[in-house]
Amino acid sequence: MTPSLDTASESTNNNDHLIKSSDPKHPANLIPDLCKKFWGLGWVTGTGGGASIRDDDLVYLAPSGVQKEMMKPEDIYVLEMSKQLDPKKRIYLRSPPTFKPSQCTPLFMAAFTKRDARCCIHSHSQWAVLITLLLEIQSQSRSQSQAQAQTQTSSDSHRVFEINNIEQIKAFGRGYQKQGNLGYHDTLRIPVIENTPFEEDLTESLEEAMDSYPDAYAVLVRRHGVYVWGDTVDKAKAQAESLDYLFQLAVEMRKLGMPWLSDIS
Amino acid sequence: MTPSLDTASESTNNNDHLIKSSDPKHPANLIPDLCKKFWGLGWVTGTGGGASIRDDDLVYLAPSGVQKEMMKPEDIYVLEMSKQLDPKKRIYLRSPPTFKPSQCTPLFMAAFTKRDARCCIHSHSQWAVLITLLLEIQSQSRSQSQAQAQTQTSSDSHRVFEINNIEQIKAFGRGYQKQGNLGYHDTLRIPVIENTPFEEDLTESLEEAMDSYPDAYAVLVRRHGVYVWGDTVDKAKAQAESLDYLFQLAVEMRKLGMPWLSDIS
Amino acid sequence: MTPSLDTASESTNNNDHLIKSSDPKHPANLIPDLCKKFWGLGWVTGTGGGASIRDDDLVYLAPSGVQKEMMKPEDIYVLEMSKQLDPKKRIYLRSPPTFKPSQCTPLFMAAFTKRDARCCIHSHSQWAVLITLLLEIQSQSRSQSQAQAQTQTSSDSHRVFEINNIEQIKAFGRGYQKQGNLGYHDTLRIPVIENTPFEEDLTESLEEAMDSYPDAYAVLVRRHGVYVWGDTVDKAKAQAESLDYLFQLAVEMRKLGMPWLSDIS
Amino acid sequence: MTPSLDTASESTNNNDHLIKSSDPKHPANLIPDLCKKFWGLGWVTGTGGGASIRDDDLVYLAPSGVQKEMMKPEDIYVLEMSKQLDPKKRIYLRSPPTFKPSQCTPLFMAAFTKRDARCCIHSHSQWAVLITLLLEIQSQSRSQSQAQAQTQTSSDSHRVFEINNIEQIKAFGRGYQKQGNLGYHDTLRIPVIENTPFEEDLTESLEEAMDSYPDAYAVLVRRHGVYVWGDTVDKAKAQAESLDYLFQLAVEMRKLGMPWLSDIS
Repeated sequence: MTPSLDTASESTNNNDHLIKSSDPKHPANLIPDLCKKFWGLGWVTGTGGGASIRDDDLVYLAPSGVQKEMMKPEDIYVLEMSKQLDPKKRIYLRSPPTFKPSQCTPLFMAAFTKRDARCCIHSHSQWAVLITLLLEIQSQSRSQSQAQAQTQTSSDSHRVFEINNIEQIKAFGRGYQKQGNLGYHDTLRIPVIENTPFEEDLTESLEEAMDSYPDAYAVLVRRHGVYVWGDTVDKAKAQAESLDYLFQLAVEMRKLGMPWLSDIS
Repeated sequence: MTPSLDTASESTNNNDHLIKSSDPKHPANLIPDLCKKFWGLGWVTGTGGGASIRDDDLVYLAPSGVQKEMMKPEDIYVLEMSKQLDPKKRIYLRSPPTFKPSQCTPLFMAAFTKRDARCCIHSHSQWAVLITLLLEIQSQSRSQSQAQAQTQTSSDSHRVFEINNIEQIKAFGRGYQKQGNLGYHDTLRIPVIENTPFEEDLTESLEEAMDSYPDAYAVLVRRHGVYVWGDTVDKAKAQAESLDYLFQLAVEMRKLGMPWLSDIS
Repeated sequence: MTPSLDTASESTNNNDHLIKSSDPKHPANLIPDLCKKFWGLGWVTGTGGGASIRDDDLVYLAPSGVQKEMMKPEDIYVLEMSKQLDPKKRIYLRSPPTFKPSQCTPLFMAAFTKRDARCCIHSHSQWAVLITLLLEIQSQSRSQSQAQAQTQTSSDSHRVFEINNIEQIKAFGRGYQKQGNLGYHDTLRIPVIENTPFEEDLTESLEEAMDSYPDAYAVLVRRHGVYVWGDTVDKAKAQAESLDYLFQLAVEMRKLGMPWLSDIS
Repeated sequence: MTPSLDTASESTNNNDHLIKSSDPKHPANLIPDLCKKFWGLGWVTGTGGGASIRDDDLVYLAPSGVQKEMMKPEDIYVLEMSKQLDPKKRIYLRSPPTFKPSQCTPLFMAAFTKRDARCCIHSHSQWAVLITLLLEIQSQSRSQSQAQAQTQTSSDSHRVFEINNIEQIKAFGRGYQKQGNLGYHDTLRIPVIENTPFEEDLTESLEEAMDSYPDAYAVLVRRHGVYVWGDTVDKAKAQAESLDYLFQLAVEMRKLGMPWLSDIS
């Protein structure tokens, strides 16, 4: 009955007004919608994966451990980006009553700070994992052909997924602060970083990969999944879908003995 | 309150009355419904693909870059077909406030003008792309067996997907201005054209393929997808679904070492 | 306002009262519900496949050519079974205003008359088609190993799909007029008949297969699909789902080099 | 109008108050919701599989033979756990008017009594079945390489599915009464037991497998499926989804010639 008081008490307690909106495009409504869709695509199975949206200086995050297809706006964390650059001092403007912050938070932040992205999607899609496994094999067989017996599969650095001459590549932007999209004959390159026991420890290598591949809108994590971002929520989603499409196609191509790179002009 | 004035202002501004109807069978309602279904089938992933419906002289088109499963009637473009034969002078009777016209427009127009089709569907289905890749390999290994070493894979013209003796073939009409449907023993032939960096540049080769295969209701585009049309919306949809079914089956057949053509009588 | 008159006029015209019911279990409501589900499973793609339910002496049938996931009760045909034994004299008690009767009608009738079934489902599932193709190959390689060169693949009679030692087999009844279900160690046998250019011409061979395999609740049609029936609607659906599960599993087993029959005790 | 009387009559008749609640988290509402989702995942095809939830001393069970995606709260059985330790004396506090108790009941009870689980899920997922088949082959080829010709495939005891170095492994708890979850480098081990003609006869070997693998949250049943449980409903569901993800990935890895165990540090 007294809205001003209600708002005051909400602000005091937990800033719940930040995640309450009747606008379906509000980040607190969009993240649950996206996650439900991603669950149907097999990207966030068993509470894995997630998504984050940045609106100006506010960052909205799905929590850890939630059944992603049943998420609600009340489950969302909110951060002030400009005040959160030191991950050890991270303070949430708004926290859900249950759940823990996602270990992916520093990785989402990397896309927002280093690429000025508006949305970052983390998928555990099997197609992404299989691509990293196929690159492992390729790397191993190359080592073996160089007569360097090597049973451990670690420390294969600078791996990258490359594909060209597939129409769906045109869904990707040319790169950070560049105009336009990739062309049909262009090669899409997605770097692969090593997985680590604790997800937040991926941050450094993710940032290195971003530096090494300044035009990439995604980074694969070996035996884990992929991070994809975009200049808008729509572009992040379209690039994430298109990448998963290319990963699945690439696995099928490998099964049928076809190379991912070809020379068509 | 003054409907006549409203209509007038709509007409003046953007002809929004053309895409407003309570009839679920109206093209402006049907296209979003179809696109939502196609997204579920993996045909329009990441804003790729699309659909167009012609109603007498009016052509309704999905725009470029829209998330196809979330399209709304307001996103639809409308053209007058008889006035649009020269693609360089194309003027839209009605345009959505955001979005750009689809690069597929001249390809949809080809189905409408050369085949008098009522609906044309453009799918990026992975099964369609894999069929074109399998035909590439076949063509390459044939070249190699003729001792013509050839690492480039371009300029393989006159490729065609052929399959017979599968019940689902009966879903296809016998051809333009012919009565009845293909029979179980008939061979379905779908020509394949080269992909081009700009989608509108496909128009000429699409029209040539239509001339060379006058009975085909579809044209595959190498490493890109497929265009399928029909004499009605229902027939276009049934043929598009049946073709995707045959593409998927054909990929599985290839994996299991079975030929697409057989001699059963 | 005058219901008695309405009913009278309906009866006179087309017996529409036969397909109007608020009971979700009424055959005219159940068939569209089932077909929508089957479309999602890939069984009735592109208007293929269908379903029929018998309620005492009345037979309810999906029409030919309808988009199965969008079917409505008004699209349903109704027959009086006792008066329809001669297929050439078939008269429909109720017909939809558009559409044609399904060519599957005599095949559904065979399940109703020879097996006293209450529901018969016809699926074009790719798994069913692939099973018939895998049996073809097996039959051909057997012929070749007997040094009988044979490029035509016709006239392979008495083919049958056999599988045992899979839990899902327990979903099947022991056979017509027998109590109880198959056990884990029992062998499920589904005969395969040749496809014909006209679906109604399958009737004779379907009935022969029913005679040769009196305990089977399904008959595969080569390069076409499968007919499955049951003593109730629920049993027909459960058997159809279980059979599709077994077909898919069997294709995967073949890809991984595993036999369908094993000797476990 | 007189709630006390209604309750009394319900208690007297069938304790229907136990399965009537407006709370979506009530077990009688949750089980149908979960089963509908599992049907979509292919885990409970054709009435196979099921789920059970324990709330303190009450155990809620899906019945045998129901179409799992159409289950309703009224279809649920309820047991008092403390009074049901002897399976031969099992008395249901509440029974649905139709249906039979599930043969899985003693297996669900084993998870509740031996592991203090709150939810147990039984899936017939094809990926689970294929994993047990792949382990069979591995075991057979090992036997053959030891020159022990063995055509029967029975009595391969102590089989276990093992996988490591996949991120999704982190979805699993470390084990019964242990804190925390498995790490990326830890090996997930799921024992496999022999299938039996009658599902309730699995109980003894399931309990033995639980004793031999005290940290496992799941047991595979050869050529049948998997039982997965959890300390909460959410954890049981997340572990069941994650396990199915790992099974599917493992089948793909095998197809591509990759080992399930690797040495990464």
